[in-house]
Amino acid sequence: MIVMEAHATKAQVQAVVARIRALGLSAQVNHGTERTVLGVAGHETEDDLDALGLLEGVERVVRILHDYPLASRDFHPENRVIDLPGGAQLGGNAVLVMAGPCAVEGRSQLQEAAEAVASQGVKVLRGGAFKPRTSPYAFQGLGGDGLKILRSVADDLGLAVVTEVLAPEDVELVARHADVLQIGARNMQNYRLLQACSQVDRPILLKRGMSSTLEEWLQAAEYILAGGNLQVALCERGIRSFEPMVRFSLDITSVPVLKRLTSLPVVVDPSHAAGRYEYVPAIGLAAVAAGADGLLVEVHPNPSEALSDGAQSLNPQAFARMMEAARKVAEAVGRQIS
Amino acid sequence: MIVMEAHATKAQVQAVVARIRALGLSAQVNHGTERTVLGVAGHETEDDLDALGLLEGVERVVRILHDYPLASRDFHPENRVIDLPGGAQLGGNAVLVMAGPCAVEGRSQLQEAAEAVASQGVKVLRGGAFKPRTSPYAFQGLGGDGLKILRSVADDLGLAVVTEVLAPEDVELVARHADVLQIGARNMQNYRLLQACSQVDRPILLKRGMSSTLEEWLQAAEYILAGGNLQVALCERGIRSFEPMVRFSLDITSVPVLKRLTSLPVVVDPSHAAGRYEYVPAIGLAAVAAGADGLLVEVHPNPSEALSDGAQSLNPQAFARMMEAARKVAEAVGRQIS
Amino acid sequence: MIVMEAHATKAQVQAVVARIRALGLSAQVNHGTERTVLGVAGHETEDDLDALGLLEGVERVVRILHDYPLASRDFHPENRVIDLPGGAQLGGNAVLVMAGPCAVEGRSQLQEAAEAVASQGVKVLRGGAFKPRTSPYAFQGLGGDGLKILRSVADDLGLAVVTEVLAPEDVELVARHADVLQIGARNMQNYRLLQACSQVDRPILLKRGMSSTLEEWLQAAEYILAGGNLQVALCERGIRSFEPMVRFSLDITSVPVLKRLTSLPVVVDPSHAAGRYEYVPAIGLAAVAAGADGLLVEVHPNPSEALSDGAQSLNPQAFARMMEAARKVAEAVGRQIS
Amino acid sequence: MIVMEAHATKAQVQAVVARIRALGLSAQVNHGTERTVLGVAGHETEDDLDALGLLEGVERVVRILHDYPLASRDFHPENRVIDLPGGAQLGGNAVLVMAGPCAVEGRSQLQEAAEAVASQGVKVLRGGAFKPRTSPYAFQGLGGDGLKILRSVADDLGLAVVTEVLAPEDVELVARHADVLQIGARNMQNYRLLQACSQVDRPILLKRGMSSTLEEWLQAAEYILAGGNLQVALCERGIRSFEPMVRFSLDITSVPVLKRLTSLPVVVDPSHAAGRYEYVPAIGLAAVAAGADGLLVEVHPNPSEALSDGAQSLNPQAFARMMEAARKVAEAVGRQIS
Repeated sequence: MIVMEAHATKAQVQAVVARIRALGLSAQVNHGTERTVLGVAGHETEDDLDALGLLEGVERVVRILHDYPLASRDFHPENRVIDLPGGAQLGGNAVLVMAGPCAVEGRSQLQEAAEAVASQGVKVLRGGAFKPRTSPYAFQGLGGDGLKILRSVADDLGLAVVTEVLAPEDVELVARHADVLQIGARNMQNYRLLQACSQVDRPILLKRGMSSTLEEWLQAAEYILAGGNLQVALCERGIRSFEPMVRFSLDITSVPVLKRLTSLPVVVDPSHAAGRYEYVPAIGLAAVAAGADGLLVEVHPNPSEALSDGAQSLNPQAFARMMEAARKVAEAVGRQIS
Repeated sequence: MIVMEAHATKAQVQAVVARIRALGLSAQVNHGTERTVLGVAGHETEDDLDALGLLEGVERVVRILHDYPLASRDFHPENRVIDLPGGAQLGGNAVLVMAGPCAVEGRSQLQEAAEAVASQGVKVLRGGAFKPRTSPYAFQGLGGDGLKILRSVADDLGLAVVTEVLAPEDVELVARHADVLQIGARNMQNYRLLQACSQVDRPILLKRGMSSTLEEWLQAAEYILAGGNLQVALCERGIRSFEPMVRFSLDITSVPVLKRLTSLPVVVDPSHAAGRYEYVPAIGLAAVAAGADGLLVEVHPNPSEALSDGAQSLNPQAFARMMEAARKVAEAVGRQIS
Repeated sequence: MIVMEAHATKAQVQAVVARIRALGLSAQVNHGTERTVLGVAGHETEDDLDALGLLEGVERVVRILHDYPLASRDFHPENRVIDLPGGAQLGGNAVLVMAGPCAVEGRSQLQEAAEAVASQGVKVLRGGAFKPRTSPYAFQGLGGDGLKILRSVADDLGLAVVTEVLAPEDVELVARHADVLQIGARNMQNYRLLQACSQVDRPILLKRGMSSTLEEWLQAAEYILAGGNLQVALCERGIRSFEPMVRFSLDITSVPVLKRLTSLPVVVDPSHAAGRYEYVPAIGLAAVAAGADGLLVEVHPNPSEALSDGAQSLNPQAFARMMEAARKVAEAVGRQIS
Repeated sequence: MIVMEAHATKAQVQAVVARIRALGLSAQVNHGTERTVLGVAGHETEDDLDALGLLEGVERVVRILHDYPLASRDFHPENRVIDLPGGAQLGGNAVLVMAGPCAVEGRSQLQEAAEAVASQGVKVLRGGAFKPRTSPYAFQGLGGDGLKILRSVADDLGLAVVTEVLAPEDVELVARHADVLQIGARNMQNYRLLQACSQVDRPILLKRGMSSTLEEWLQAAEYILAGGNLQVALCERGIRSFEPMVRFSLDITSVPVLKRLTSLPVVVDPSHAAGRYEYVPAIGLAAVAAGADGLLVEVHPNPSEALSDGAQSLNPQAFARMMEAARKVAEAVGRQIS
């Protein structure tokens, strides 16, 4: 839609119409009481619209349609379901819990965490080998060694593995050891990384940027889908807000909105949003009640010894209590926890 | 805490200490490896701290303690419970649902809405007589006539009434007809209105400003408490976010954080956050799962005919379905709906 | 504009068209390649649009036109100029500086501040008698006594007075002593106060809410204009941002955008945004360079003794240096300082 | 600073002190009237602080000191000045203007733009060869071919070149053709890219993330500095705000705050913030008045034909007018334009 200025002349309207047609699009003119509005139809790009916005007499351009055909529910009405090794599913009726420590610190720490989560029926182990850190002086993860530990511990317990990938050049390495590749919030618009992940035969868990709109997030997913990888799940992890008491404010509203806009599975990470372990269970249960298809939860055998993000990790006892409550809430909304 | 600059001189430190003592406060000096930090103890005001921040050699002042003693859980560890006419309670184990139309449009519309919510066991009727509207050209509510209709319809059905008050000069009038006075988001820092509400013998439901911090919100509650009215409940109704798909993003994280900071009851309004009726049930259930003590829900007998906020109102059938699910979720977290 | 869902039926489209016509509006149907879009013309209200958004098959409603006819430049292309006692003008070619202490603390403090600003050629004295404070325990201003001091000191020096009004019941009193009434950021959407200010024969300086959009701000101004008071100036004072180092981030972009949207004068308050005196001059000069019609600056004879907001007040020497630089920058953009 | 809970026991305080010492840090205990606060001194990491925050009786941890020693002005009081080929300087007394088209579209377009900016005395040509685009379906830049065109056109006119680098694997290639490497807002926390840029002998222009804090930004710069590349300049390009009329709101306040915190040069990009060419000059002049060391401006020979971001590009005539005004404003604040 092109909104003309209040005092736009007839000649200006005609020039815009001519330009629309020159771009291979069709134009429909609506003379309102206060101003003229032009409807544009066809396959216009954002760059086309930008150019039209500059013509004389144009006040502004309003985009009506979204730009993520593959991610959109319009084009794929049924839920997309992702099958994981070991029989777990993401996007089906059961709510999939993925749990484990923020960072892999060593074999015994991971072993202990993995046993704790497996004992609660969890089928997917999370753990970071490559860690994105705000400060260059903070612990950056064990890298390739961490990946090997992850795979080995998970194999012993029959678990699938989800772990973060930070750079295009690591995608192949991470895919060799993990079942699901996670793209972190800070990399949501790292387009080279998205493109590299579109070329790999692994599901991608794409976290939301800390102040991204849902449309930008779906367009980021579209990079992966358009490159040929249709196994993409979205992970809401909180948005930056003005509240200094928490790291991020979980945007619970995004869960039902996403379920309407897209057929991709929607996961919630209650640990990063809260930033403090006491708040994690309440937020996790809220996510299940709101319709999330999965949870990503930080569990550490001994949070106060953690090398990273200890403050937001549940210990095994707290995690067990949360799982028990989550099972009841899932049942209340007609689902199960898996 | 007063943080001195890296290159602050001894004389500057001494001058700050002298000033702290002149204000009747005590000072403790900590010489760190990189800079000196002064701890201040006593009953300092924000204005005192501002003044200290200006002294030479001071880098900044960090406030450690909160400034809402009456609202704080530190000083009142047990939950504050508010008793309403008809036996309903806010802040007890049961989750209190308050429901009804956005605006009172006339007797028959309110009657129909009230019957619909009462038939679901709701004991508190909501409805706006004075409406704050962004545009001066929009419907502004029925005013005093609306209050009378509210009271009369509620009395017929044995319901309590919650309704908004917009200005100090209306407090007495609204208190005559309503059981709970609501202060809207735009008025959260209308200090004269807060003061007027501190003088009335009615519980106050204080909504959060659309981008207020929790501390500012608790300080606003403190105005009412400090004036002598200890019956205050907080209502989270969504924060402004960058997401254009929704009116507001419900800050679900605030629920567990508030339950830790304050003993005041915490209510959630899922209708204003979502801005669209389809999203209301998911957000309402999430609030119950996260530990909210109450819900404030818009229900209209015929939303597409509503004079205001129809887009976010549930019709009676959708409300009945939401209540059924809410009862199950409440039970899952060890509570009931009342 | 009504955007229909991708799979909307013909009957749904016809039902929406019928409803539009029933509201006394006209409808134009645009069949796009992917979906149908309906243009609505006439004098529709926001409530009408809300109602249309609920009909079956409607995806969403996009508002094209603004809702502030009196504030808009479309309807009043020339700048509105406000004449003040003593010959000062707001909205003309000269940039009007209004300066003085945050709060009136007593006669000698105000006298000293007023002399300092008058000696720099300032013609409008600012000073708060009624202070909106976040905490109920902070200094709340001298009230009516403060107003009398303001008037008396200003009269001695031949200055005009701008001061804040907090509540409808104070409008008459404040108007008796002040030449310009200021509405603070927290009260931008205090509609009763706006209405009361629309009935008084004094220019109104309307500050922007701390996270208001420009449209909401202009709609707030519209309340005053629609009530019959056409002397309204807007004051940008910073928006809340994620940056903890400053109280607010001055939205310099709003200056040129407002100059395009509205004919009302645009003032900038660099003192509240910065929150620290060191940053005030840089922001004030930026405002002049960007095209602001006025500056509102806090000046205190002895900032470290101020009862409120001392941290952001300039002392007389710093203010004199800022004025000297402001005169040069104004000249660089073809204006003067008055 | 470790703030203990109001009801923390002596034993809890002692346990925290013991833990602080076990980390090799020193602790100082301050008993306030309401609670105990522990000062921690030494070289603690963020992870240490996280761990301390989990101990029993701890309410929260307040970080006093920043974590970017190399970027900080404390440790390097004088401005860091970056010398560019051709004699231009960034961070000296002159304000450096870098201008050119958003994207390199071909030789003739770039040639025309480069001549236009060179004729205004500009010494650094900007132009994008690798373009980060929100949609996978938008024009992504000419890549390596674009770099060659840039270099060749710049050499003909004796200009230096600044251009964006998107991925670690491109750093070497881009450094071969460009004099300054730009890291875009979306990549501000792409740590691998920062690390790669720390290894190259070229100045880096680091844009601010769209909702990053100044501290996060300085920590991102620290990644480059800590890797050994001390030639880093910061570029403010607007922060996401709630205002739908503009793409971003330029955070002018960040200019004086950064000049206090860091010795790195501070550049402002008025083109991306505004999102519309009409607003660019006002914002650019404001940046100069506020103390920016450089401007990054989009200039296109024919904006309405641009393949990307045409809406915000100045045409040569508008750019010439802006430069003329910028020279006057620079002079007003005691600087020149180079």
